[in-house]
Amino acid sequence: MPYVNIQITKDGTTKEQKRALIHGVSQVLSDVLGKHPKSTYVVITEVELEDWGVGGKSLAQYAEEKDK
Amino acid sequence: MPYVNIQITKDGTTKEQKRALIHGVSQVLSDVLGKHPKSTYVVITEVELEDWGVGGKSLAQYAEEKDK
Amino acid sequence: MPYVNIQITKDGTTKEQKRALIHGVSQVLSDVLGKHPKSTYVVITEVELEDWGVGGKSLAQYAEEKDK
Amino acid sequence: MPYVNIQITKDGTTKEQKRALIHGVSQVLSDVLGKHPKSTYVVITEVELEDWGVGGKSLAQYAEEKDK
Amino acid sequence: MPYVNIQITKDGTTKEQKRALIHGVSQVLSDVLGKHPKSTYVVITEVELEDWGVGGKSLAQYAEEKDK
Amino acid sequence: MPYVNIQITKDGTTKEQKRALIHGVSQVLSDVLGKHPKSTYVVITEVELEDWGVGGKSLAQYAEEKDK
Repeated sequence: MPYVNIQITKDGTTKEQKRALIHGVSQVLSDVLGKHPKSTYVVITEVELEDWGVGGKSLAQYAEEKDK
Repeated sequence: MPYVNIQITKDGTTKEQKRALIHGVSQVLSDVLGKHPKSTYVVITEVELEDWGVGGKSLAQYAEEKDK
Repeated sequence: MPYVNIQITKDGTTKEQKRALIHGVSQVLSDVLGKHPKSTYVVITEVELEDWGVGGKSLAQYAEEKDK
Repeated sequence: MPYVNIQITKDGTTKEQKRALIHGVSQVLSDVLGKHPKSTYVVITEVELEDWGVGGKSLAQYAEEKDK
Repeated sequence: MPYVNIQITKDGTTKEQKRALIHGVSQVLSDVLGKHPKSTYVVITEVELEDWGVGGKSLAQYAEEKDK
Repeated sequence: MPYVNIQITKDGTTKEQKRALIHGVSQVLSDVLGKHPKSTYVVITEVELEDWGVGGKSLAQYAEEKDK
């Protein structure tokens, strides 16, 4: 009865990639724990670059600095 | 001092329904645990059909297949 | 296909209360959105008083001060 | 290797404020636990007033009542 | 820079299974999105049967009924 | 009305450090967004080394390899 939340940055992930993520992660849960995919929920959360920080700065800041 | 996160698919939930969800869930916490609603936070998260998977496929895929 | 996470402080919630929470919240989702309870996951998370803060202090600190 | 999720209401938080949040929280983790900011992820989630409830009502309801 | 939270019921998942979950999910993120595993955090959360509900009842209730 | 969840590895964080985390993070929210600490909830989640993965391996695996 697993629930999986995948948080990724919002930078052009396609519909096909999302489907591959959902399929792949459900498969891992099935292979490793024997959980039937029917009982596994996968929720993908896309996060804006301005809203994701690492190293004390937002990813948008790194992108800006790189562009200079 | 409860915090409740309700994740639902984004498929036309109205403002009134959201208010009923917040009211109803706060009431359950109050009835069962005696928590004053003033201390209960409820956060609703709407998830796109493309971002919610079950059975190894996104809900958008099921919708597409149904339409065919 | 809702997923609900209920975070409460760990202070003696009984098995019966947890069951009432799960039942009550699933009922609200069913009443308000017409979601079949079979598709609603509810996960209860109990949080130690030392791990829950409000007003800049942990709930354990308030309990200590009250005891003095 | 901390992960921090900050949920705030969506009411005009600026890019600069988000950057200050990310910087400030990463600094706290570094000061208190000695965690290198490079290993700390901070994710900011903005929540619509209609989707945040307290006291059994959404924040949008309070805003409406106040305007009357 | 993905963050993945896997919530499963606490029913004897071994150390080896957890490692296979972490490895497998990181691999999916790498294969599908090209994310370097070094930047992917995976957090496993085990949930007691009493704390996980579906169909309006806790998983512990189903287990009890089955035993009767 | 912010809610903050801090996930850290479970490796001996003291009661005093947790209090400093709660105080510090509430202060950042107050300084940057003007949110009154009374309305800010902070929840600390400690995660076992076996349950936290990065680079495709659990932190417990890195610890084991280092000990060899």
